[in-house]
Amino acid sequence: FTPAMLKLRVLTVRNALVRECMAELLATFVLLLFGCSAAAQVKTSRETKGQYLSVNMAFSVGVMSAMYLSKGISGAHLNPAVTLSFCVLGRSPWDRLVPFCLSQLLGAYMASALVYLVYYDAIMDFSGGVLTVYGQNETASIFATYPSEFLTLGRSFLDQIVGTGMLMLCILSLNEKRNTPAPTELIPAIVGVIVLGISVSMTGNCGGAINPARDLGPRLFMLTAGWGTEVFTCYNYWFWVPLVAPLIGGLIGTFLYLIFIDWHLPDPDQPENLSNAHDVNDKIKATWDSGAELREHNF
Amino acid sequence: FTPAMLKLRVLTVRNALVRECMAELLATFVLLLFGCSAAAQVKTSRETKGQYLSVNMAFSVGVMSAMYLSKGISGAHLNPAVTLSFCVLGRSPWDRLVPFCLSQLLGAYMASALVYLVYYDAIMDFSGGVLTVYGQNETASIFATYPSEFLTLGRSFLDQIVGTGMLMLCILSLNEKRNTPAPTELIPAIVGVIVLGISVSMTGNCGGAINPARDLGPRLFMLTAGWGTEVFTCYNYWFWVPLVAPLIGGLIGTFLYLIFIDWHLPDPDQPENLSNAHDVNDKIKATWDSGAELREHNF
Amino acid sequence: FTPAMLKLRVLTVRNALVRECMAELLATFVLLLFGCSAAAQVKTSRETKGQYLSVNMAFSVGVMSAMYLSKGISGAHLNPAVTLSFCVLGRSPWDRLVPFCLSQLLGAYMASALVYLVYYDAIMDFSGGVLTVYGQNETASIFATYPSEFLTLGRSFLDQIVGTGMLMLCILSLNEKRNTPAPTELIPAIVGVIVLGISVSMTGNCGGAINPARDLGPRLFMLTAGWGTEVFTCYNYWFWVPLVAPLIGGLIGTFLYLIFIDWHLPDPDQPENLSNAHDVNDKIKATWDSGAELREHNF
Amino acid sequence: FTPAMLKLRVLTVRNALVRECMAELLATFVLLLFGCSAAAQVKTSRETKGQYLSVNMAFSVGVMSAMYLSKGISGAHLNPAVTLSFCVLGRSPWDRLVPFCLSQLLGAYMASALVYLVYYDAIMDFSGGVLTVYGQNETASIFATYPSEFLTLGRSFLDQIVGTGMLMLCILSLNEKRNTPAPTELIPAIVGVIVLGISVSMTGNCGGAINPARDLGPRLFMLTAGWGTEVFTCYNYWFWVPLVAPLIGGLIGTFLYLIFIDWHLPDPDQPENLSNAHDVNDKIKATWDSGAELREHNF
Repeated sequence: FTPAMLKLRVLTVRNALVRECMAELLATFVLLLFGCSAAAQVKTSRETKGQYLSVNMAFSVGVMSAMYLSKGISGAHLNPAVTLSFCVLGRSPWDRLVPFCLSQLLGAYMASALVYLVYYDAIMDFSGGVLTVYGQNETASIFATYPSEFLTLGRSFLDQIVGTGMLMLCILSLNEKRNTPAPTELIPAIVGVIVLGISVSMTGNCGGAINPARDLGPRLFMLTAGWGTEVFTCYNYWFWVPLVAPLIGGLIGTFLYLIFIDWHLPDPDQPENLSNAHDVNDKIKATWDSGAELREHNF
Repeated sequence: FTPAMLKLRVLTVRNALVRECMAELLATFVLLLFGCSAAAQVKTSRETKGQYLSVNMAFSVGVMSAMYLSKGISGAHLNPAVTLSFCVLGRSPWDRLVPFCLSQLLGAYMASALVYLVYYDAIMDFSGGVLTVYGQNETASIFATYPSEFLTLGRSFLDQIVGTGMLMLCILSLNEKRNTPAPTELIPAIVGVIVLGISVSMTGNCGGAINPARDLGPRLFMLTAGWGTEVFTCYNYWFWVPLVAPLIGGLIGTFLYLIFIDWHLPDPDQPENLSNAHDVNDKIKATWDSGAELREHNF
Repeated sequence: FTPAMLKLRVLTVRNALVRECMAELLATFVLLLFGCSAAAQVKTSRETKGQYLSVNMAFSVGVMSAMYLSKGISGAHLNPAVTLSFCVLGRSPWDRLVPFCLSQLLGAYMASALVYLVYYDAIMDFSGGVLTVYGQNETASIFATYPSEFLTLGRSFLDQIVGTGMLMLCILSLNEKRNTPAPTELIPAIVGVIVLGISVSMTGNCGGAINPARDLGPRLFMLTAGWGTEVFTCYNYWFWVPLVAPLIGGLIGTFLYLIFIDWHLPDPDQPENLSNAHDVNDKIKATWDSGAELREHNF
Repeated sequence: FTPAMLKLRVLTVRNALVRECMAELLATFVLLLFGCSAAAQVKTSRETKGQYLSVNMAFSVGVMSAMYLSKGISGAHLNPAVTLSFCVLGRSPWDRLVPFCLSQLLGAYMASALVYLVYYDAIMDFSGGVLTVYGQNETASIFATYPSEFLTLGRSFLDQIVGTGMLMLCILSLNEKRNTPAPTELIPAIVGVIVLGISVSMTGNCGGAINPARDLGPRLFMLTAGWGTEVFTCYNYWFWVPLVAPLIGGLIGTFLYLIFIDWHLPDPDQPENLSNAHDVNDKIKATWDSGAELREHNF
């Protein structure tokens, strides 16, 4: 008996696009299952079984786990804003844009449904059986994001642009061999830490979706599960903000990275820059290695 | 005087099975000692010396430490659900199933006993000397898991299936060279982080045992230590749920991983797939390395 | 279509100094955006969306992200105190001192402005529209640091010296090949952890700026944004302490490192020391590797 | 101008013992400065600037930083219980035992003094100027550990044995090439995580010193700083427990590791065991690598 025997050849997907979409779907499913479950646990336990920070951590671990599951297959975008930016950068083919976004959306929808099933009793106990978007016993915030009362539309739009911009700006530098690359095998963990940082600092205004799929998927589920159309109409149809703003924010963060960092990194095609590259590397060595590099052969 | 002199050859175990069972026993002992001690500290100090999150962290560190102690010897299953899944996958021989499960159970039992000894005064002070399963001063939740009042049987069964499924789904991808492997030497730490994620998100309903040994071992100890048969009879004999559901959940998570990810990974035996493998790798490189890979020889 | 096509050659900066200043500016911007946003989120939500620890974590993640963005270009100083110490150590050319400090200051100023824009509604809602430095509804502590009522001037000066000294002392050892180097690719993450440690232990007296740019930048912004001159005059013109003390503290930490550690590390130019080096290494191996090293060729 | 110019040859220590003692002193100083500062910050701010968990984290980061500073020089024991165990294991020469313990004690004493200087105003403000060991405004627990009211002597002795035993048991496996070694360059970080785990789970009874130097150093400082002899006489001269119990506990943990793990690891001197070693390694590979290892040459 061997693992190979388990492999049902008939189920093996030969098509790369389908395989990648399945990976994006499963990964986004995992991300949302971690995040929304934590939100449900903290909310329904009235913070006796966790706190705001637990939810931030859950999304962070979710990103890490989702990336280890899919990064080698689809690139682990998990987020239409990331997919769009990668397409613009030419790092992902444009024909992936729509299929990936739909897969991410479906994964987020399915995760919300499962979280609802798992925490159904708790949600009913907490809400008194009435699924509402407003008020003390609202449970909509377990799944999707909503703006604070005091928040203006423009402000929430800016909030989502900044949050998503920071995400792209920070992750784009992680694998740049010409700068300070993170260990390739630990990028999922480090992206998770970056998401934790964004969660503790940029979710105060409107929950920090910074991901259209993460927000629309659960919202669509709530519509079908009994929260009613209010999940879309509430706060003057605010739901479109976390759909549109992150796409723009991701691009702004991407160009910020290009303008401030990437375009000035040594270009191997141009010798004089390459030499610069060496200067830079040497200086950095000097800055951090205290010249140990130079002595290394002695050890 | 050398360390070798300490080695009592007579005590050296030559039998691989015994050696592996000793490792599983010690590792599960370490895992439970961390986790249940934290639960005792937080509970008996009435959250003045820690909080719910501390307990989550303790189980996480416990998993990491336990894996570093035993992964090179027994594979560090620490959990019958993991052992069963690995046997089904053919990654662990079937003749290990029963011995490993018993070792894990014994390790969990011994850890509970030690935690009880260490926190005996605190438990007596907190509970007023009466060891109960219900009420304000109950201390049973320090050791084993119990469902929330509002939870139905089916829901708790689903809860344990989902939690254990997520565990298997997430850890199975960590060492897959054909996908995005985690650094082999850091897998214990990353599995610990995944367990932290599950603890902050999927323990709201019924404590998230997701491990038959972790739950039955301490429960058996409580039976012998004075909590009485109520630890088994309470909540309508609920104790069987964390014994059975994790085994099923682990298998579901395993097959979810096979169906969505593993079966579609390039199979080296089939050249055309192997080429796919390269396509995939190249694309991922393109996605994350911004082509630095291609230029690497310049550095 | 390729990423190269995005590259506007005209925007490429050929001058190393300008390139490095841009990196320092962006990196300090990222650090402050994470940190001050978290402070705004926790403060304006009255700790319902995070707590003191969240702010500590945000600065930690900010340092990590900022270093991955700039370490390969400018060395990721992010802090005039670090730049000064590196100049004294000869690890950074003196002509970088002023330009780097100004870039860091500008980055911090810009980050504060953006945080103010993003959290404007929240700040207005929390403060009732009055931007003050003192009182229940003060919002100045979101951006810059202030001393506790009971704190004397000398004590706050010592506090900043000790905090910055610990920072330099701890980071200087991270890349020393002759001691216990951290993985080069993970130094940003480890420095982030060290900053977390300082944040949870040395910010009780006066907020723990340990960075002139991190404190003056936001303070200048507040002056221009409506908090008035009080941000400088308050607590008897205390603002100069986090400007001067960190510079001195950084140097003290640096010399502490040189006197206790660096000067006694084996010097490859002197053979008899080099042999010492080997003795040391061997002993350490013996201490930690349980002689596995010696057996390694067997595996 | 070069760093070499800073090096005062006259100050260079040629004697290995002195050099190692200086490293142990500085490292223990760093560990205590992080830990006690956090305790002072949380205590004097009445948990408004941190919580119990912050103190746990500070000790964890302190261990990591201290190890990066000294591991390559003295082995980074930081703890007489660790030094004793390493001497018994033959991993550290016996002539290091006393000098290292004294250096650790002195480092701990100096750190307490500095923490007192830095937090003097806060301590005076919190305690009302009266330095006491008992009562609401006691400040002795900032520096040394004390038992809970309900704790019996024997229980606290067991508590310290178990805590220190877990420490040794867990760290001894980290660098075992024949088992699952942690990355050598990350051992300081992983030991820090283990210490965090112990802090959140085994400090409920009596503060979890698990280190004679960490407890006696600050206690001696308090005696000289004005807390009076009560720091030693309180709780019926309890202070000797964290001095003696950790030494025994460390040895118990060490032998637990030898008996359960080390003695059964393949011994390269004995071919038949070596083959076992390979069996084990192969099985583990099979368990975790899903045979990817075998296919690796294809990639």
